[in-house]
Amino acid sequence: MSDYRAPLRDIQFVLEHIVGLPELCQVDEFAHADPEMVAGVLEENGRFMADLVGPLNVVGDQVGSVLNADGSVTTPDGFADAYQRYVEAGWGGVPFSEAHGGGGFPWLVGVAMQEIMCSASMAFSLCPLLTQGAIDALVHHGSEEQRELYLGRMINGEWSGTMNLTEPDAGSDVGALRAKAVPAEDGSYLISGTKIFITYGDHDMADNIIHLVLARTPDAPPGTRGISCFIVPKFVLDESGEPGEPNDVHVVSLEHKLGIHGSPTCVLSFGENTEGAVGYLIGEENAGMRYMFTMMNNARLSVGLQGLSLSERAYQAALEYAQERRQGRAPGAPKGESSAIIDHADVRRMLMTQRAYIEAMRALCYLNAAAMDRSRVLPDEAERQANAELAELLIPLSKGWCTDIGNEMTSLAVQVHGGMGYIEETGVAQHFRDVRIAAIYEGTNGIQAADLVGRKLPMRGGGVVFDHIARMRALDTELGQHDELTSIRDSLTVAIDQFETATRWIMDHGVEDPRNALAGSSPYLRLAGQVTAGWLMAQQVLAATRLLVDGDDEFLQAKVVTGRFFVEQLLPQAAGLVPAITAGYEDLFSLSASALAG
Amino acid sequence: MSDYRAPLRDIQFVLEHIVGLPELCQVDEFAHADPEMVAGVLEENGRFMADLVGPLNVVGDQVGSVLNADGSVTTPDGFADAYQRYVEAGWGGVPFSEAHGGGGFPWLVGVAMQEIMCSASMAFSLCPLLTQGAIDALVHHGSEEQRELYLGRMINGEWSGTMNLTEPDAGSDVGALRAKAVPAEDGSYLISGTKIFITYGDHDMADNIIHLVLARTPDAPPGTRGISCFIVPKFVLDESGEPGEPNDVHVVSLEHKLGIHGSPTCVLSFGENTEGAVGYLIGEENAGMRYMFTMMNNARLSVGLQGLSLSERAYQAALEYAQERRQGRAPGAPKGESSAIIDHADVRRMLMTQRAYIEAMRALCYLNAAAMDRSRVLPDEAERQANAELAELLIPLSKGWCTDIGNEMTSLAVQVHGGMGYIEETGVAQHFRDVRIAAIYEGTNGIQAADLVGRKLPMRGGGVVFDHIARMRALDTELGQHDELTSIRDSLTVAIDQFETATRWIMDHGVEDPRNALAGSSPYLRLAGQVTAGWLMAQQVLAATRLLVDGDDEFLQAKVVTGRFFVEQLLPQAAGLVPAITAGYEDLFSLSASALAG
Repeated sequence: MSDYRAPLRDIQFVLEHIVGLPELCQVDEFAHADPEMVAGVLEENGRFMADLVGPLNVVGDQVGSVLNADGSVTTPDGFADAYQRYVEAGWGGVPFSEAHGGGGFPWLVGVAMQEIMCSASMAFSLCPLLTQGAIDALVHHGSEEQRELYLGRMINGEWSGTMNLTEPDAGSDVGALRAKAVPAEDGSYLISGTKIFITYGDHDMADNIIHLVLARTPDAPPGTRGISCFIVPKFVLDESGEPGEPNDVHVVSLEHKLGIHGSPTCVLSFGENTEGAVGYLIGEENAGMRYMFTMMNNARLSVGLQGLSLSERAYQAALEYAQERRQGRAPGAPKGESSAIIDHADVRRMLMTQRAYIEAMRALCYLNAAAMDRSRVLPDEAERQANAELAELLIPLSKGWCTDIGNEMTSLAVQVHGGMGYIEETGVAQHFRDVRIAAIYEGTNGIQAADLVGRKLPMRGGGVVFDHIARMRALDTELGQHDELTSIRDSLTVAIDQFETATRWIMDHGVEDPRNALAGSSPYLRLAGQVTAGWLMAQQVLAATRLLVDGDDEFLQAKVVTGRFFVEQLLPQAAGLVPAITAGYEDLFSLSASALAG
Repeated sequence: MSDYRAPLRDIQFVLEHIVGLPELCQVDEFAHADPEMVAGVLEENGRFMADLVGPLNVVGDQVGSVLNADGSVTTPDGFADAYQRYVEAGWGGVPFSEAHGGGGFPWLVGVAMQEIMCSASMAFSLCPLLTQGAIDALVHHGSEEQRELYLGRMINGEWSGTMNLTEPDAGSDVGALRAKAVPAEDGSYLISGTKIFITYGDHDMADNIIHLVLARTPDAPPGTRGISCFIVPKFVLDESGEPGEPNDVHVVSLEHKLGIHGSPTCVLSFGENTEGAVGYLIGEENAGMRYMFTMMNNARLSVGLQGLSLSERAYQAALEYAQERRQGRAPGAPKGESSAIIDHADVRRMLMTQRAYIEAMRALCYLNAAAMDRSRVLPDEAERQANAELAELLIPLSKGWCTDIGNEMTSLAVQVHGGMGYIEETGVAQHFRDVRIAAIYEGTNGIQAADLVGRKLPMRGGGVVFDHIARMRALDTELGQHDELTSIRDSLTVAIDQFETATRWIMDHGVEDPRNALAGSSPYLRLAGQVTAGWLMAQQVLAATRLLVDGDDEFLQAKVVTGRFFVEQLLPQAAGLVPAITAGYEDLFSLSASALAG
């Protein structure tokens, strides 16, 4: 079983040299933070997660969370203790505003911490993650009183949060939900209905659970325009603001899942024994869907990070195994000696592929986070707007591309382990199982692809995506100043050309019939992710090349190699997607269901 | 939970129109078989597997095989009964020679039956599969007496077989094995040592288990040249040839695996309580490795089939779910109605991708089997030789490409299910877990890639692979006769050109340094599989087009569409692999292990 070690050097490199943390720290809002302080925070966080949370990942998987006869949920041994320490250390508050009791650091720093926590234990990390989502909603849409009552203890982690959207017939189609909210005389609402897939819907780690629940009021219009959002605390607060009477919220069952066993996925029943669970409206009636969109970007980026986090964790295990395991003789090795499998070319390819994709995913997710920060805090309106647009464009790439890649990279890590990879005790199979949900929840990757072609490409009539293409092309000038980077320059240019061609095809033909855009949307998302990643890897090569002028540094030299490997050997794989992107919808729809069944 | 239905129409189509079953049946050896009879056998087999074995797949996963306190293994409820019925029906013997009590059908027919059995339950199918391997070894290398004693009851399935190769330090590197075989006075050998990953190493389904064990005699040379192969029966046969005294073979433990829980994967200890377990030498001392090569092609093809089988099973589940599940409104659907998700373009793409790859895998594996049959039974020596070469070339593609694709297609089937795919009760996640071993065992896919570039390309100085390229190019003439197939023709030509370029690069640069060939071997295997599959799909389009002249047939019309979809939209994805294939080894080896760790 491999230990986890936070990849601080690479995190720091991306923060400082690729996504602009130093400039971000100069903005008034983050004036008290500086890159050095951030480095210290991440170092301490990395130690905490590696030492206290990482070791819980296996028990979390093997024992899992359990539903007791009394309807309560017990998390795996050690989860509650570690969570208590997490609360005491104040990790949850770091990226939230000081006004609400947070640390006032950029969201970007919170994202780096999320990466680390999720690598340590994805199942554990989901409790703070869902809380973050609920905090987000309250910060933006809660009343003064609600923020006062709930935010402080949610930000410090004493209370956790959940998001209750999904119902049996309302998954990707949130607008189909049927949970009810009936106004009570005291201004509260009575909430009833059944919600499924509720992450940490009950548990024993926090003193209260603040459920955010989507439901319909009696006269609500149908579909997404009739959804309201409610606070439904597990324990209704008493007059002094402390958890009081238990609310009418019950765990019906826990799901038996492929992975993330430590994280209890609940079926929750609201108002089963009374007229309804006590709920408090957030903001206005029928505006719930709009409020959800506020949190969506953060949530989707966090799920994209899960692809990165588990790829990193699985890669660390694979790299360690490849150095220890000896099998066969590599070409050139002394006769009669068996070689560590890392010396076999194909194992090297698997390791290099993992490392290169991990570096690319990290840069993409962090850039997305930095753009979100800048869209909020930069003094210049136009710059805020440009960053908001970039963040919007990148969200489906961070979520969709990183989680697809996460599935593939954890599978490669299993493969490096050979037969041992298939044995659960080895531990690497858990990462492969755990990460599989990330391409599904928070909007399946198909939904991400539809979002990319249906909402993001049309922004400013295509202006946002063409700005992105221009931004990527702008790197060519600097690449052109280095003769040794010619092949990177050429490969990147070809890929950007293909991306532009594909983008224009989708925009032109999607206007004729939206099915044309949707039919190619998933391969298009893959292409968009791959090209953006190639551009970010080329940037890393340039940054490392600049820094290397001062001397000799193994990390920076490796950056140049993995960057070149990505751009020369992995990026071109996206080229083959263009025919699928530009094929249109007709062949997809020309078989009946019975013909598809053969 | 979706039922399994054998895809008889497509199986029959490939047998009759793509891989030449009718011509094969005209050979003397198979004169008693004809395509109609084969169709009948497969129909009955399909019914048997769907009705009796398919329903056991879930309990096999949930309960798994269990090691009892007395060291015996109990298989999941229903496995032993179904196996008994399997023996009574005589399914195991169908593809074996009548001289040994088999049905005398082509191996090709046995392979079609294997596909069906593995779709029904991969975990169940492994018992007959391992038995087949042991039979193979005895047929080719056993003495007259050994064949007489063991073969009949192994072919009818009363006794099962196992293959004992792997040891803790000898996996991919079989030559490192250390199990001992000391000659006894009576001509038998005393076998001692520990073997791991022994599939169905013990169980309660058969009256005896015939272990084939690789071990070293006292004066054996080191490495693969010093390995001998022994028969070690669970119950030593008494004078009348019946199972008698228990041998000194013990199950130390069962592995806790990612999938195929129904199949007991044993650590076996030989000779723990005595001087050694009783073993009987097969053939000559030190020839064991050569004997293993005899069985290797069959075994690797069977594992390739597992990629096909579980893709088919998972696809059936996904297709059913996509028709039942309603979410959102597809473009063009009536307002206010939710659409079945099969009407969403991206879900269609996932389903079409699965279907197209399944058809391609089936054609590839069946062609491989047919070539193996023809290499054995054709009257003309040159034709036998040509088919033997083709079979050798295709083996790493069947094994490596189909199992990689199997991982991807079962993952797509999970994705079609959305959140339900992650819930174990839905059943589709099991196929995703089960199939994951297939890319690992029987030679990891990295080993397959090394075999392809290191052993198969050099055959006849490249003559075999260039013959294959010429054979693929020859389809161009027929494609050229159909105007509507121009795009297929063009796409296939481009892909074959790329494959030829990549092949020449590997052959030229592999001579300079074998690491150049090995470095690109995995993407090269992928390219080789994809191009060969594209050629086979184009053949299917042509065959369907010919047959459609007579009228209207939904199945044949669908063939044209899936074939075109594959060649136009999936085949081009291989193009992007060429840069990785032709990059050489240097970047792969330029980072130290510590640099790889960042």
